[in-house]
Amino acid sequence: MEQISLECALETLLEKIQPLKNVEEKYILDSLGFVLAEDILSPLNNPPFNRSPLDGFTFNNTDTIGATKDNPIAFNVISEILAGDFCDKKNLSKEAFRIMTGAPIPDGCNCVIKQEDVIFNEETKTLYVDRELKPFENFCFLGEDLKIDDLVIKQGEIITYNHIGVLASLGINTIKVFKKPKVGVLSLGSELTMPGKDLEKGKIYNSNLFTIVSKLKYLGVDGIIFPPMCDDSVSVSNFISEELKNIDFLITTGGVSVGKKDIMHDVIKKLGANRLFWKINIQPGTPVLASEKDGKLILSLSGNPFASLVNFELLGRPVLSKLSSNAIKNTTLIEGVVRGGFNKKSSKRRFIRGYFRDGYIYLNDKKHSSGTISSLIGKNAIVEVLPGTPYLSEGDKVSVILID
Amino acid sequence: MEQISLECALETLLEKIQPLKNVEEKYILDSLGFVLAEDILSPLNNPPFNRSPLDGFTFNNTDTIGATKDNPIAFNVISEILAGDFCDKKNLSKEAFRIMTGAPIPDGCNCVIKQEDVIFNEETKTLYVDRELKPFENFCFLGEDLKIDDLVIKQGEIITYNHIGVLASLGINTIKVFKKPKVGVLSLGSELTMPGKDLEKGKIYNSNLFTIVSKLKYLGVDGIIFPPMCDDSVSVSNFISEELKNIDFLITTGGVSVGKKDIMHDVIKKLGANRLFWKINIQPGTPVLASEKDGKLILSLSGNPFASLVNFELLGRPVLSKLSSNAIKNTTLIEGVVRGGFNKKSSKRRFIRGYFRDGYIYLNDKKHSSGTISSLIGKNAIVEVLPGTPYLSEGDKVSVILID
Repeated sequence: MEQISLECALETLLEKIQPLKNVEEKYILDSLGFVLAEDILSPLNNPPFNRSPLDGFTFNNTDTIGATKDNPIAFNVISEILAGDFCDKKNLSKEAFRIMTGAPIPDGCNCVIKQEDVIFNEETKTLYVDRELKPFENFCFLGEDLKIDDLVIKQGEIITYNHIGVLASLGINTIKVFKKPKVGVLSLGSELTMPGKDLEKGKIYNSNLFTIVSKLKYLGVDGIIFPPMCDDSVSVSNFISEELKNIDFLITTGGVSVGKKDIMHDVIKKLGANRLFWKINIQPGTPVLASEKDGKLILSLSGNPFASLVNFELLGRPVLSKLSSNAIKNTTLIEGVVRGGFNKKSSKRRFIRGYFRDGYIYLNDKKHSSGTISSLIGKNAIVEVLPGTPYLSEGDKVSVILID
Repeated sequence: MEQISLECALETLLEKIQPLKNVEEKYILDSLGFVLAEDILSPLNNPPFNRSPLDGFTFNNTDTIGATKDNPIAFNVISEILAGDFCDKKNLSKEAFRIMTGAPIPDGCNCVIKQEDVIFNEETKTLYVDRELKPFENFCFLGEDLKIDDLVIKQGEIITYNHIGVLASLGINTIKVFKKPKVGVLSLGSELTMPGKDLEKGKIYNSNLFTIVSKLKYLGVDGIIFPPMCDDSVSVSNFISEELKNIDFLITTGGVSVGKKDIMHDVIKKLGANRLFWKINIQPGTPVLASEKDGKLILSLSGNPFASLVNFELLGRPVLSKLSSNAIKNTTLIEGVVRGGFNKKSSKRRFIRGYFRDGYIYLNDKKHSSGTISSLIGKNAIVEVLPGTPYLSEGDKVSVILID
């Protein structure tokens, strides 16, 4: 089977899927990072009343006409309004209210003066104002933040911490969001041992499962960890056939090359899945296999640690991003200037690991072998090396895929 | 009391605290974002054996000396080694093993040839090799990724998805991390109504609690939500006195100004807490109050929505960052070039909201009032406006504090 391009492989995957539209209701504090499934209109005017922005006195400004330092105007302070109070007395001429920050301004009052700027006689409840106030001076209007039915957040937006405060301020404590995709992760290989167990001769520890699941977690999805399976196509296909019903997307690792234990080819036949492609024209991660069953994608990554990460970032993440209406952040393609270098010529389009910061992509690492995993630490990018490129040198401009 | 500078306030807070050093053991998949409390040394050589990077045949390269297309050298293939197998047969002259990707290379073999590059007679188990191989061609060395006792991750590093894959590859399934700070959030004010409940006249919905707690969640901390309390200093101080024992840091909102309901001054007296400062020379958020009791900080934010956010970002986050050994990301100070503008002159150092991207800080918003909350949506930065600055114009360079 011919190797297809990365772009063609990605297109093939993306045209098979649509954003998932299952809706769930969430408490606002649990909705961070979810995609809003409804338009949020303001259910109220906010603030819900005219209110004072400071601690002072409120009255009608026309009563201050002519007030000067030498000729202060006296008001009779008839009551005190605290935040949370409600006063239904109507203001009369030369009457004032003592008012605290956030308290509702009574009808008839249209300005507030700071308590530091007046003389107030507590005994006689007499207030002296020695300057003219403008209408609506220090006056917060009902609905000045939002009016009833204003569009507050549009369907499709990803809920951030900013949204949550605003929703709370409107009294909204639950919202409708799209469910995140249920992603299963299955690793294949009789050589794989789960960390924490003793390692027998010839076996290695299972790292791919943990790399992928921790990456999913970082991206805001609790991946479903399936028990790793050995290289038996019957039991693997039976297992997938059963579990695929409960998930939206299956990622497998291993078993996709041409060796005796590369059972995924047989598994997808037994499953009756539709093979979309096998092998793409990149290195590492060439033998990635994609198939579809009942409208659900199965993406079978190379078993090599770095190769599986490359497959996941270049193909799996865009799928997750589309399924989740972008709740799962896609990778970002940018340009970077090389620091350090890379000197392995390849006839294929190659992807290597690097660390991107402030426009530079650092390629200091010697350990580029796709089986080498420790050199992933500290990397946040994969870098494209075009086919036939003899080497990358300091200062070269390259395409960088940010995987953070 | 004199207003102190932001810098002085921050220094005062930070010198009162030390990074928390309580250690807990975590399953690696639950350790994302925690700070490692131990050095991780490799417990094994990884890979744990010499292994084949591909599907092919392995033998000793000296047996291929003189091999050419016209004069291929024949090997007797004595056995097959799959990934996960272990073969303790020693290689003899002109003997080869069929070997699959990831399988251990037997003693005496020192190279691997791809199965596509040879002729193999399945019947007679005869392999024909028509070129000379170099020693260690296609050969992955035991320990080439990591050797026993290599330092893999240093104490103090924040665990990322990359670390988790590497830890798994070494068989490590639990690690020691520092516990994250326990942060309590208490909002004060009899005007506050929890979202989801009906709003009585004169009341408003409690947004600060949700803004702060969702921000904490975004930063990786499950804040402890205390039930909002009314303006009664006795019950508030009793409550704090009890709950402070169980947390590392208390954030309160409201009750810090000079009004009748600004009970926090009284609360800290009743608590016997040590007041560190009250009022800083910025706007909004001037009346922030900080106190300390039994080595724990109480940071009492302004009750105004934007003011409380400014207080939290400028003072609360650095405290959290230090307490958590940087597991909680601090704000970042950078320079930005203004797009749009801001035209409110202030005698004080002022902070306004903005959106930062690619070096530019967008100040398009009209709604800068500190009581306005909806305009927080889409903002990721707060911008410093120096005292006396008449206005900020397109192209001005400003200090930007990234709050994402």
